[in-house]
Parts: sequence; C-alpha cells; structure tokens
Amino acid sequence: MTTLYVSPGACSLGAIVTLKALGIPHQLVRVALRQPGSLIYEINPLGRVPTLQLDNGDIITENAAILPFLGDLKPEAKLFAPIGSLQRARIQEWIGFANSDLHPAFRPVTRPELFVDQPEAQQQVRKKGLERLHTLLGHVERRLPVGQWLVGENFTIADAYIGVFLGWLPRADIDAESKYPAIHAYQKRYISHPAVQAALAAETQLRNNDSAQKLSA
Amino acid sequence: MTTLYVSPGACSLGAIVTLKALGIPHQLVRVALRQPGSLIYEINPLGRVPTLQLDNGDIITENAAILPFLGDLKPEAKLFAPIGSLQRARIQEWIGFANSDLHPAFRPVTRPELFVDQPEAQQQVRKKGLERLHTLLGHVERRLPVGQWLVGENFTIADAYIGVFLGWLPRADIDAESKYPAIHAYQKRYISHPAVQAALAAETQLRNNDSAQKLSA
Repeated sequence: MTTLYVSPGACSLGAIVTLKALGIPHQLVRVALRQPGSLIYEINPLGRVPTLQLDNGDIITENAAILPFLGDLKPEAKLFAPIGSLQRARIQEWIGFANSDLHPAFRPVTRPELFVDQPEAQQQVRKKGLERLHTLLGHVERRLPVGQWLVGENFTIADAYIGVFLGWLPRADIDAESKYPAIHAYQKRYISHPAVQAALAAETQLRNNDSAQKLSA
Repeated sequence: MTTLYVSPGACSLGAIVTLKALGIPHQLVRVALRQPGSLIYEINPLGRVPTLQLDNGDIITENAAILPFLGDLKPEAKLFAPIGSLQRARIQEWIGFANSDLHPAFRPVTRPELFVDQPEAQQQVRKKGLERLHTLLGHVERRLPVGQWLVGENFTIADAYIGVFLGWLPRADIDAESKYPAIHAYQKRYISHPAVQAALAAETQLRNNDSAQKLSA
C-alpha cells in the first residue's frame, strides 16, 4: 500500500490532503523529526517529511515532487492540469513560491535560534524575519482570487500545499482576520474542504494515539 | 518571441541553460534586481528572475514552474521525463530540494545583513549558515552519480538548475575541489556542457554591453 511518512503539524499535511482529495488508499506513518534514531532517517537520509513510499518500494521525497506525482496519477480529479497548459504552470508557480519563499520565511520567525545564539540578536532575527514574511503574505493577499481556489475553480495541489502555510500564521503571532482578510477567508474555505477535514482528523488521530503510529485509509 | 528576464549571476542561469539545451528561439532581457523602478517589477510583482514571457504575453514566474514548462515543450529532447515515471519524480525532487533548501541556504552565508544588524551577530549568522550549507552539500556529494547526470544518462532540467548553485560555492568561500570531489567533478562536467557554455556566453555578453540589455538567440 502507498505509505506516507508524516509528522502532525508539519508541511506533510499538504500531501495528506492530496491523498484524501484523490481518494488513493494509503497508510500514514507518524515519525519523529530531528531525533537521532528516528525511523525517517532509514527512509529519507535528510530526515524530512513528507516522504512517499510506493507499493513497489520506490521512495519519493519533497513536496514539490510528491504533489505533482500524486496529482498526475488521477488527472480526472483535476487536482493538477494537463501538460503544456498555463494552468499547470500556475499550479507549479504557487508550489514553487511556497517551497522556496513562504515556507522558509517561517524559520527565522519561529526558530531564530537556528541563526544566532544571543537572545537580543534572536529578537532581531525574528523581527527582520517577520518583515519578510509580511512582504510575502502581502503578495499572497493581493493575488488570492475572491471565492475561488488559487488557480481557477478547482481545488488543486497548489491549494493543498499553500493552505498549510497560511494556517501557520498564528505560529508567527499574525492575526490574519484583521490584517489579511483575503487570506483569512481563503483559510476558512480551506479548513472546511472535505479532504482537509479528513487530513486534519487523521493528524489528530496520529497525535492522540502514541502506540498506534500507523493509520490506514 | 519567448522572452526570458534574467540577471547575470542569478539563478536565472538555469532557465537560460534550459532554453539553450532545448534550442527554443528566445530573447533574453537583462533587468536590475532589488532596484526600485526596475523593469522587472512591471512583469513580476515580486521582482524576481527568471520570469518567462510567452509569445502570447502570458507570464510564468518561478524556476520550479518555468523549467518543467519548458522541458515539457520538447519531450523528445529528454530534459524532462514522461508523466507518471519515477524519473520525472526524481527530477522534480532535485528541483524541489534546490528550490527549498540549497538556494535559500546561501542567503545567511552571503547576505547575513538580511537577518541581523550587529557585525558580530552577522558573523554568527554566517557561521551557522555555513554549517547548514555543508550539511546540504554533504547530502548532494553522497548522492551524485559518478560520471552521469543527476537522474540517469540524460542532462535534465534538474542538472540545468542544480548546477547553478553548485557553481556558487566560491561565493561561500568553499573549495569544492578539496572538500567535495564529486561535486567538483560534476561541476566541471556541467560547465563544459554546450548549453551551459552558451548560457554563460550570453550572460557575459549581457554584462559587457550595458546599452544593449536585450539579446536574441
């Protein structure tokens, strides 16, 4: 069975959402991050989630590879778009932006200790990091289509992915409701999408039951 | 004509290499980065290169979108791989890794002032950034196939892209020859690939001739 290695609360949520939206039978395996000896290092030398293991044992890492791969398995579900289409490029564009910019922009804000030791310097790293994060969020806010998904009418792998990070705003103490109304409205829609609901429920189950780290669906 | 907005020395090199490798007629337009009023802001609100403009005016941003889009235009050139293939996922995996990790890892090393003001704190940001960069380079070093390109026998868009960052090691004062022999050997091969040669020649021409910022090929 297709196995996805995940950690609740991490960016692996986007891949869980994608599996749920596509209705692909799968098993979720919860792994510890940044802990020597964690199972994930046996599967992915970089110790990252999500990591996908196919029926035949082949392993695919990186959201930017996993989401397009999954989306292409079921073109009829329209989570991705046909080769050569501008829509497909737009979906890849949002995934690239989230992957290279939005996701890494949280790092100085939520983990400034990775950059510098001294507490006052960490405060500054956090402050400058927040400025950059606001620049990126402002860009997203201006480009979010009202009442639609990111790229047209269909919920795509771009939504599955970017919704994860837009849901992290509270971690950076950013109040989306007052500051980014479009993001706030989008995020409410994202959270109520059936695939996101199913993915969040699976994460809760994985969190609550430490003895059963595997979950099949 | 297909137009690519670039800045010599930036990561837009990977997209130039891809255009050259595919033999797609194109025009390169040199733009200034991080300068208010630069032409690039009219094309791409984030002010980034590469930005691709198609014949019909459509604009595609992000390497992670541009390279797959271009690769899919000429499947017979084998710069990308068929939908659903593991090879395609591997190519996306390397692009994702470079996009989310390798590229951003240079930032604290080469521009620590983006993170903190105080000179001593900047030194520490640089030092910690270097440690992380070495971790990522170690991963690349261990996974580089000897005498082959990144994903099998063909030069792909993954090579076009990752070769750019492996060429940035001198910017971080890292001596690849002594520390990363596989990367060093790969990089020599990359630099001598005809498409890379053509792309570097185009960048030199764009650099040398300030009055002619456009270059057709």
